[in-house]
Amino acid sequence: MLTMQDALLTLTRYWTERGCMIVQPFNTEVGAGTYNPATILRVLGGEPWRVAYVEPSVRPDDSRYGFNPNRLQTHTQFQVILKPDPGDPQELYLGSLRALGVDTEAHDVRFVEDNWTSPALGAWGLGWEVWLDGQEITQFTYFQQAGGQSLDPVSVEITYGIERIMMALQEVRHFTEIAYAPGVSYGEVFGQAEFEMSRYYLDEADIDAVRRMYGEFAAEARRLLDARLPVPAHSYVLKCSHAFNILDSRGAVSTTERAASFAQMRGMSREVATLWRDRRVELGSPLGETPRPAPAVPAAVDPAAVPSGPATLLFEIGTEELPAAEVGRQTEAVRAALVERLAGTRLAHGSVLVRGTPRRIVAVVEEVAAREPDVEQVVRGPRRSAAYDAQGEPTKAATGFVRGQGAAVADLTVVEHRGVEHVALVRTDTGRPAVEVLAEVLGAVLTGLRSERNMRWNDPELSFSRPVRWVVALLGGSVVPVAVSTLAAGTTSRGHRRAGSPPIEVRGADGYAELLAASSVLLDPAARRELIVDEAAKLAAEQHGVIDLELEADVIDEVTNLVEYPRPVLGSFERRYLELPPEILTTVMHKHQRYLAVRDTAGALQPCFVTVADGAVDVPLVRVGNEAVLRSRFEDAAFFFDADLKVPLATFRAGLAKLTFEQRLGSVADRADRIAVLAGRLADRLGSSAGTGLSALDRATLDRAGELAKFDLATQMVIELSSLAGTMAREYARRAGEPEAVAVALYEMELPRRAGGAVAQTVPGALLALADRLDLLTGLFALDAAPTGSSDQFGLRRAALGVTAILAGRPEFAGLTVADMLAEAAKLLPVPVSETALEQADAFVRARFTQQLLDAGADHRLVGALRPLTGRPARAASTLRELRTLVESPAFARLAAAVGRVRRIVPAEATPGIVIGDLVDPADHRLAQAATELSRQLVVRSSGRAPELADFVAVAGQLPAAVDAFFDAVMVMADDPAVRAARLGLLAEIRDVAAEVLDWDALGTLPITPARAADGT
Amino acid sequence: MLTMQDALLTLTRYWTERGCMIVQPFNTEVGAGTYNPATILRVLGGEPWRVAYVEPSVRPDDSRYGFNPNRLQTHTQFQVILKPDPGDPQELYLGSLRALGVDTEAHDVRFVEDNWTSPALGAWGLGWEVWLDGQEITQFTYFQQAGGQSLDPVSVEITYGIERIMMALQEVRHFTEIAYAPGVSYGEVFGQAEFEMSRYYLDEADIDAVRRMYGEFAAEARRLLDARLPVPAHSYVLKCSHAFNILDSRGAVSTTERAASFAQMRGMSREVATLWRDRRVELGSPLGETPRPAPAVPAAVDPAAVPSGPATLLFEIGTEELPAAEVGRQTEAVRAALVERLAGTRLAHGSVLVRGTPRRIVAVVEEVAAREPDVEQVVRGPRRSAAYDAQGEPTKAATGFVRGQGAAVADLTVVEHRGVEHVALVRTDTGRPAVEVLAEVLGAVLTGLRSERNMRWNDPELSFSRPVRWVVALLGGSVVPVAVSTLAAGTTSRGHRRAGSPPIEVRGADGYAELLAASSVLLDPAARRELIVDEAAKLAAEQHGVIDLELEADVIDEVTNLVEYPRPVLGSFERRYLELPPEILTTVMHKHQRYLAVRDTAGALQPCFVTVADGAVDVPLVRVGNEAVLRSRFEDAAFFFDADLKVPLATFRAGLAKLTFEQRLGSVADRADRIAVLAGRLADRLGSSAGTGLSALDRATLDRAGELAKFDLATQMVIELSSLAGTMAREYARRAGEPEAVAVALYEMELPRRAGGAVAQTVPGALLALADRLDLLTGLFALDAAPTGSSDQFGLRRAALGVTAILAGRPEFAGLTVADMLAEAAKLLPVPVSETALEQADAFVRARFTQQLLDAGADHRLVGALRPLTGRPARAASTLRELRTLVESPAFARLAAAVGRVRRIVPAEATPGIVIGDLVDPADHRLAQAATELSRQLVVRSSGRAPELADFVAVAGQLPAAVDAFFDAVMVMADDPAVRAARLGLLAEIRDVAAEVLDWDALGTLPITPARAADGT
Repeated sequence: MLTMQDALLTLTRYWTERGCMIVQPFNTEVGAGTYNPATILRVLGGEPWRVAYVEPSVRPDDSRYGFNPNRLQTHTQFQVILKPDPGDPQELYLGSLRALGVDTEAHDVRFVEDNWTSPALGAWGLGWEVWLDGQEITQFTYFQQAGGQSLDPVSVEITYGIERIMMALQEVRHFTEIAYAPGVSYGEVFGQAEFEMSRYYLDEADIDAVRRMYGEFAAEARRLLDARLPVPAHSYVLKCSHAFNILDSRGAVSTTERAASFAQMRGMSREVATLWRDRRVELGSPLGETPRPAPAVPAAVDPAAVPSGPATLLFEIGTEELPAAEVGRQTEAVRAALVERLAGTRLAHGSVLVRGTPRRIVAVVEEVAAREPDVEQVVRGPRRSAAYDAQGEPTKAATGFVRGQGAAVADLTVVEHRGVEHVALVRTDTGRPAVEVLAEVLGAVLTGLRSERNMRWNDPELSFSRPVRWVVALLGGSVVPVAVSTLAAGTTSRGHRRAGSPPIEVRGADGYAELLAASSVLLDPAARRELIVDEAAKLAAEQHGVIDLELEADVIDEVTNLVEYPRPVLGSFERRYLELPPEILTTVMHKHQRYLAVRDTAGALQPCFVTVADGAVDVPLVRVGNEAVLRSRFEDAAFFFDADLKVPLATFRAGLAKLTFEQRLGSVADRADRIAVLAGRLADRLGSSAGTGLSALDRATLDRAGELAKFDLATQMVIELSSLAGTMAREYARRAGEPEAVAVALYEMELPRRAGGAVAQTVPGALLALADRLDLLTGLFALDAAPTGSSDQFGLRRAALGVTAILAGRPEFAGLTVADMLAEAAKLLPVPVSETALEQADAFVRARFTQQLLDAGADHRLVGALRPLTGRPARAASTLRELRTLVESPAFARLAAAVGRVRRIVPAEATPGIVIGDLVDPADHRLAQAATELSRQLVVRSSGRAPELADFVAVAGQLPAAVDAFFDAVMVMADDPAVRAARLGLLAEIRDVAAEVLDWDALGTLPITPARAADGT
Repeated sequence: MLTMQDALLTLTRYWTERGCMIVQPFNTEVGAGTYNPATILRVLGGEPWRVAYVEPSVRPDDSRYGFNPNRLQTHTQFQVILKPDPGDPQELYLGSLRALGVDTEAHDVRFVEDNWTSPALGAWGLGWEVWLDGQEITQFTYFQQAGGQSLDPVSVEITYGIERIMMALQEVRHFTEIAYAPGVSYGEVFGQAEFEMSRYYLDEADIDAVRRMYGEFAAEARRLLDARLPVPAHSYVLKCSHAFNILDSRGAVSTTERAASFAQMRGMSREVATLWRDRRVELGSPLGETPRPAPAVPAAVDPAAVPSGPATLLFEIGTEELPAAEVGRQTEAVRAALVERLAGTRLAHGSVLVRGTPRRIVAVVEEVAAREPDVEQVVRGPRRSAAYDAQGEPTKAATGFVRGQGAAVADLTVVEHRGVEHVALVRTDTGRPAVEVLAEVLGAVLTGLRSERNMRWNDPELSFSRPVRWVVALLGGSVVPVAVSTLAAGTTSRGHRRAGSPPIEVRGADGYAELLAASSVLLDPAARRELIVDEAAKLAAEQHGVIDLELEADVIDEVTNLVEYPRPVLGSFERRYLELPPEILTTVMHKHQRYLAVRDTAGALQPCFVTVADGAVDVPLVRVGNEAVLRSRFEDAAFFFDADLKVPLATFRAGLAKLTFEQRLGSVADRADRIAVLAGRLADRLGSSAGTGLSALDRATLDRAGELAKFDLATQMVIELSSLAGTMAREYARRAGEPEAVAVALYEMELPRRAGGAVAQTVPGALLALADRLDLLTGLFALDAAPTGSSDQFGLRRAALGVTAILAGRPEFAGLTVADMLAEAAKLLPVPVSETALEQADAFVRARFTQQLLDAGADHRLVGALRPLTGRPARAASTLRELRTLVESPAFARLAAAVGRVRRIVPAEATPGIVIGDLVDPADHRLAQAATELSRQLVVRSSGRAPELADFVAVAGQLPAAVDAFFDAVMVMADDPAVRAARLGLLAEIRDVAAEVLDWDALGTLPITPARAADGT
């Protein structure tokens, strides 16, 4: 059996044989091999670097006393850096797995999108997790930035998770069982340290002492940066990072402290990086400079092979594994680019079909003409009169024109332009051959490839989601001589990874799809999806189960684009895990593993799953591997669940006091207390303001849920799977015997989880959810911590949207405006909240609401008109719905025009009021009567509520005529100042009544029909 | 070429193939691989452990910015732990060198005594530095204690210095030139880090911050110990250690701080160790228990081979390399033990000759009889009268006696004892065969082997300087069946290491020495020494040089016992190094390298040296290697020397302010200031007290030297080679243009360097040296830091001996007593000095002086007699010289008897005084006259000095007769109280005059002849 130390030596040998240098683990605690200066500093600048090393990586947060089968506070990474990217790093990597004895043709080895960011290091990269039968065994990253610097050349970073690999290879269930060396298990060697270091990181570390250490380390790093010493400075930044991680695992890091520490560490990392690069240059780049790769030479075109008539174009862009979401997007993008670029030529062509897999985007353009047609072009010269002298000889103007065009005087002809005769040359623009045109078009498509997040690799010019490694371009049977940067199109495609990505010679579009299918590549996503759905259904049926296509849709969509040839594999897990709440199981299966859940017809989870492997794997082997992974993940969850169930809810709730929320805003417990009080006060105010008071039962529910608010943040399950906050609160509350309504309220207070997500259905839930977000908003605005630019570390935007989403669905809460609620929240905060802060918070929430409506497609004029109502989202929402219809009606248009006429003439400062005695014209009186009646009826209709647009429209029937008659009959600006004042007062009265329900100015000219029907609420 | 990373992989492979596990370097800074828990914790307890790992070891103190060819702040160790000792660890180690491509038969690979102690870890071990052609490449230690615990089983620790090995193998002169990986040099990879970390450790580390870190780390370690978590506690102890090392390299650690920190770290390390061992036991010793080795079976004796007549015994104890000093000691010890043990038997034997090399102690005993003679033994029983009754029948007494002796009544005979007849049994005690006797004797010798420092290895019972690996014991041609613990004597010896220690079958003592010589082992140290002297002289002569046998005697003695077959090899060095002061060169050659210096006939050093290799080495190879080593050492020294010469002396002197001497006693600068002032005051007092004032020139010298006192402690050279303190002061002072007398005074103030060493020859030098030591003594006694037991960390014993050694040679200083001087020193201290402290210091100095005289062999009676004079060592010394002669003279004996007679009769409380009026007898008056005359003449002779013994003897000629006459004539205790009082007063007068010059009581009976003529001063 390959022991763990054998594996490390094997990898060492494998990579040294491929030119890597060996260095040692770093001699201060690092969270990952990346932080070793052999990576994080060496990836900077232009010196080449190939290195491999072992790195015991310390993650205090992963401490589990050694009990958890997979989780260790110190795990062993094997780190490889290839700088520059050698062009075939995935193949080199797969070779290393084979060196370890992994049969890469039998196992399901996958490259699953996983991008890496280290805020502390100002670093990021794109790449993958490598999965071995569902187990993440390696992180594979193209390093794009470090210390805030863009990297050129780009380095390939390969990080093997050795314990995971060993567990898979040795088929053991717990890391302690790994055969570390002959006759010695991992547990025997490292078990005690794992336990004791866990005890330190979880229980014993002295928070104050470690915080002081952090300070000392940071100060030392600062001094060293000032002394221009990046190496020791980096070491102290790492010590900061480790100290921070200890504090974090002790639950001692508040949100602001986290933000501040990260900002500090990031800042220092950037300085370290800049300094390091500068210093290397000063030292004359001791390791030399990376040579720039040579540009590719276009393929030679065999004239005999060039089609003489219409032919089909095959264009294959071969990539390393694209993220699943990019496959569809890029298919569409390539199609659009092709169509547009071709339209920019005169080349005739038929239909354009683009399809894709994670490893290729393939376009087929039918009936491409052999060449562009020729066209004639007239080049106008000087006026005829100026072109010839009296003797009819060409003047200098004419000969200069002819010479400039490379023609002869004899070629001149005469054309008329705007009634004047000019000499001219008529030239024929000869159409280019298709291969020439296509070479240009396809080159532009390649150069123009872009995804949501783009990266660089060993190509000096291209940038894309993942590296492009080959291009096939064939028109009929002829290669199209595309060459861009280091890429040149040829006729060689690649087969499926499972078969070792063998080269495939392509003759042309005809038979291409079949050629690929024969190599286990299904080009058509629809075919892949269908295969998955069909096969998964069959597998589920074997277990008397079904795949719920609705609940599994996201996963099916994703796995469709994670594979080139789907191979659904059924696996099972022990029935006992079904005792866990289903949300836990599905969260693990969907989010972590991309497995399809199997249910019975009633929807209950069954003890099995379907994973979708890629290609012709060894099914039993892959099943066993995936089962082991899922088991350990479930075991993890069960461990937390069982542990949590042993703790009373009140203990968790009390435990929140240990979690600092924000230093000035107190602990999470303080915040939960405020939320409970605030929710109660909002309930009180609702009850008093609009007769919508809570039932006694709701009130009791609210009070109890308030007492427990957020308790689950202290549970191990939520600490581990934070997306289960609320879900676990409901689960644990139920199991603790709390009333169902309380459990639900605790669940609902975490809703909505994202823009457009479900919101609380019960009043107690809604109140708690509101209170939660209001407390956050007022607190952070009070601290002047409003989001800036792209940074919104406290999630205030999400909080604002939550507030408006909840309120938008609750007309019964309309008695309170956002501003009212924020003011109520402010009263409970331990810090003073200025008026300005409250106004800013209110404006922020309302602006987010407006933006959300616009994002949902609502017409900007309608949204603008809602401005007076954004403080009452429910009313704004209903008004928007009404407006959508109203703006199409002529009657409303007339009303709006009348209001507009009024608004235009009344100066802003005019005081409203109807002074009958000063009104002198019958039209005055008619309008005054209409206005008075309008106000009266509005009061009646809205009976205590603030009047709404519908009320206004309903009672304003007489207004347009009265307004029109008024303006026809009288001059507002009468000479008599009293009359003038009375008329302006009357109009201001109308203006103000109307302004309450809408911003009429924003509507513009009516009627309009909104372009899209999106509701936006 | 074998690159450094190849070497690491080769060693990894070599040791894994020999059952070692591989672990990773520790993830916090460690000073050596030893501190990795894989060593320091795993050597504890009974679990077996075999491990190998690379350890980048950080020694801030070794920072040299990467300029020094050999010195790195981070160097790479390869560490191996073999627990238990496999029995052949040296051979395994040599195999690893061969795996690295080292031809161990051609190179001079040596095991040179080097013992290891880590006060911070409470750990020590015995072993060697392994030299490869003079270069220390490995530390090889039998780990005896860790964390204050004795280790059982003992672990073998092998620590390779990889950079050193690579430099030797690759023949490069600077570590930066090492080929680290293909195409990449060490400097290219690590040069920048070496420079920057040096900058940090030497210049930039924030002393206060690092001191605070130390405190935090220590507190955290403390808490973790209390929580019973040895693993994280150990990590924090290491962090303490590293922080301490940083402070140290910044020159920020005072003597007391060092002592306190070490005590703290040692204490914590002990607790960590105890806790770790306890925890392993609690965990059930996961790695099992080391089996106890089986006892050896004695060799079978072939009766045919046992000599029937006298034969020669050959007894060879084969060891691993003994320390050079132990070879002679153990040769003698084995001889003594053999002689004594044989004397305890009845075995007749001839001469006993024992000789030794580092690897064997060999005894040859000639003419050993074949067996012990038989002897008759009479066992006396009851009286004959009680043995038989009236009938002549044996009584119960007789039969009981006979039965008790296992005999029969018929065996009884009769013997006479003190004139009474007893029954008796005569028994023959049959002599045992020689092999049986010898097996016992030799076993006892083996068991009794002891050296100054003893160690344990894989034998569970034996303990010796180094492991005993084989025993040969042959009487004539027969093996002697010695078996002790796991060792059994046989007939197989081992040849020279250079030949791979081949087994050698030994037939007997005859031809044994020749057999060894044929295997390149010269058993006779005298022969080895002669060979060295002769060959070295020849080699030196080749270079027209000589070996000064007196100056090189210590080295010659040492190397004689460092080799089994000396092979002097001449090497040379660049002439430019001769520009360095010769003391530097000889210090390096003698102390570090054990090379013989080559001089011209005038004594000037020549640019060459002789190293003494062991065995049949490849001379050119060994020469080149040794030359490289010496070059780098000289380069080191030259680097310091040049750097120092650029700095003004005043700058160094000012730099002393940065070196804390003792927190309460201030900096080294404060101390140097005090020394200067104190020396001046002592000079003043000398001048005033006895007319021995300094000349103006001496005074000026003293003042200037005082200003510069101790400046060289701040020089790099002395920081590096502390034994050159004083020497470098003289050198640098001369080069800075100081007067020669000042330079000499600065040199002399550091004298004597050890007990019996040379002392200052000039008055300024002597005064400064005195002041230095007096300041130290008063300061530390004031702080109640007197030495206790074996601990004397401030070197107070040496200081006391220094004071008395200087004073002993300077009668002109006798005007001041030690107590006077201490009191003077006390006035300058920044702390109060109590009377008690001063008295203790005085008593301490005087007791050391007395002890030194005794150690030097002076008769304890004479030394005792000096008691009144020990405060004036010069007088004590001269008195001792006089006494040596006097005590042999009858006249002095008579004088001493007379004084003794007086002293015995006078009670202690008697008041001296001569009251002539009350004296009534002529004898009274004769004695009174003699006493008066004695006093008068004494005053004349000593003219202001305190009278000395010689004065007293010279003028006391009349005293004995007068005393005798007095006692013959009168009764002291006369009835008349006045007479009685007058006589007692007279005698007390004589007593007191005599007491000033000697403690007469201590002399005892005279005349005596001192057993040894040692002077003792």
